[in-house]
Amino acid sequence: MTRAVRFHQTGGPEVLQFDDVQVASPQSGEVQIRVKALGINRAEVMYRTGKYVIDPQFPAKLGYEASGEVVAVGANVTGFATGDLVSVIPAFSFAEYGMYGEVVNAPGHAVVKNPANVTHEEAAATWMMFVTAYGALINYGKLTSADTVIIGAATSSVGLAAIQIAKMVGAKTVALTRSAEKEGTLRACGADHVLLSDMPDLTEYIMSVTGGKGARIVFDPVGGPNARNILRAMSHGGIYYQYGALDSRDIPVPVMDILTKHLVLQGYELFEITQDAQKLEQAKAFISEGLSSRALRPVIDRVFRFEEIAEAHRYMEAGNQVGKIVVTL
Amino acid sequence: MTRAVRFHQTGGPEVLQFDDVQVASPQSGEVQIRVKALGINRAEVMYRTGKYVIDPQFPAKLGYEASGEVVAVGANVTGFATGDLVSVIPAFSFAEYGMYGEVVNAPGHAVVKNPANVTHEEAAATWMMFVTAYGALINYGKLTSADTVIIGAATSSVGLAAIQIAKMVGAKTVALTRSAEKEGTLRACGADHVLLSDMPDLTEYIMSVTGGKGARIVFDPVGGPNARNILRAMSHGGIYYQYGALDSRDIPVPVMDILTKHLVLQGYELFEITQDAQKLEQAKAFISEGLSSRALRPVIDRVFRFEEIAEAHRYMEAGNQVGKIVVTL
Repeated sequence: MTRAVRFHQTGGPEVLQFDDVQVASPQSGEVQIRVKALGINRAEVMYRTGKYVIDPQFPAKLGYEASGEVVAVGANVTGFATGDLVSVIPAFSFAEYGMYGEVVNAPGHAVVKNPANVTHEEAAATWMMFVTAYGALINYGKLTSADTVIIGAATSSVGLAAIQIAKMVGAKTVALTRSAEKEGTLRACGADHVLLSDMPDLTEYIMSVTGGKGARIVFDPVGGPNARNILRAMSHGGIYYQYGALDSRDIPVPVMDILTKHLVLQGYELFEITQDAQKLEQAKAFISEGLSSRALRPVIDRVFRFEEIAEAHRYMEAGNQVGKIVVTL
Repeated sequence: MTRAVRFHQTGGPEVLQFDDVQVASPQSGEVQIRVKALGINRAEVMYRTGKYVIDPQFPAKLGYEASGEVVAVGANVTGFATGDLVSVIPAFSFAEYGMYGEVVNAPGHAVVKNPANVTHEEAAATWMMFVTAYGALINYGKLTSADTVIIGAATSSVGLAAIQIAKMVGAKTVALTRSAEKEGTLRACGADHVLLSDMPDLTEYIMSVTGGKGARIVFDPVGGPNARNILRAMSHGGIYYQYGALDSRDIPVPVMDILTKHLVLQGYELFEITQDAQKLEQAKAFISEGLSSRALRPVIDRVFRFEEIAEAHRYMEAGNQVGKIVVTL
């Protein structure tokens, strides 16, 4: 028997409980992993509270990200052997798999070998943030060194990952944040410019820092009324990737701007990449290369022990972290 | 000397005047045409009043569309000979060319041979409406018989062209109009469903007529608050092409819809097609085929004589036409 974190009813962090479970041998297509570290995601908090895109069936397992050691390999899986150090990409449903456990099975397509110089804590913090940012910036947006990208909610783990990916391809970054206190942190993380997302003259500031050109790519989980000021500061042919709904209000789109500049506003989710075999392989290759060269290094805010997993959820809900929350086993 | 319509100051239709001009021999890359019919466009009304994207230099020539007979061919133009019946695509600037004349020069890339069974009136009415609709629906939208397309301001010439192009590829159409009186006309023009654009339960009606699926493509020159109801009735992966700004107010985009359904709102203009040599050639081929088979037949509202061109502009400004206004010489 090994321990897994599950919940038997929706609710606060206290509903997370340690259950002794018998993990089955990996089936065809699966890899069994002894988990060393977990990445904590907002999706898991939402799932625990019953507010996620799928409803939990009890007892409900959860967890999108893990890093650990392969302990068994199912049939029809190639490229992995017992003892390999691997991590898990969020390319599955909580209805089928959950990584919050000492020993877990994961679908083979979601498993990737860790580069030699990456720790379990880093590997467990890698895939959600970097694949999300990679999908919009690189797979769709084809970001290059000629571009400026505007990054909303830049102190989130995905926002920080976007700054690193932009720097990796030589693009300029404008990081947006609600908090003036985080300017220094964002500059230390590589942002070329830091602006307050609710400043009234945001358009003029963006035009100014881009030499009057505007930004070709926007990558934003917020939306809401401030998005109008960002849209007005985009260059011809610009694309605004909306990847969250932190502000639930409508996005007011100025029609002359999108018409005369041929702008695009596009809803985007990680699963567009992870559910497409070819896009997922390209994402793995790009990000693994970035991890190996240290161009990409997940920013970790704080590390909790496995026994403190409810505390880790509470800390996420408080919302003051800059970067990823990780749990080690 | 031949007559050309020009204006020497911006203003009402009365500023259009007939000037005797000496048309130069066609230069390299140009074709000279004896004009038999002209298509009248809103762009020309806006240019005449000083509200277009470029400002007139006086005396200002104008006119995007014409059909007629080739009378001379400049150097470095292939595929045309004296006597060919041809029409002109809006793929140039009024700063360089204007079709409102008895004899005009046009850039060779904007000239196309008329199919044998098409009149000058029809050919002069063809290219603005069909290339505009083709670009969004076919070049970008890849419309197929599996799709439903929502067409805003459907009684406009471009709206009617969109209905025909959708039918040509077997797609279903939902035509939107402000006027209940035009429902019969739109059905006669081939619309599968006609709905009032400002009805409060527009979303539910669109979902109903699409069997709960929603529409994958929207093609709309209006925008404004009603666009929200349309966006809410789109299917997963849907694309909303905004090709005008008839309502100058912001478009309120519901964030959960674009996020969870991965919707795209895209500003689109005809010039994206006509300024790209390859896209323009594909548009010519598609539309010429449709004209030849009679799948595409420009809807002409009314024909004026050349001497009545100011009257034709007045009639367009009154805004009651269904389809194209044409002038014959």
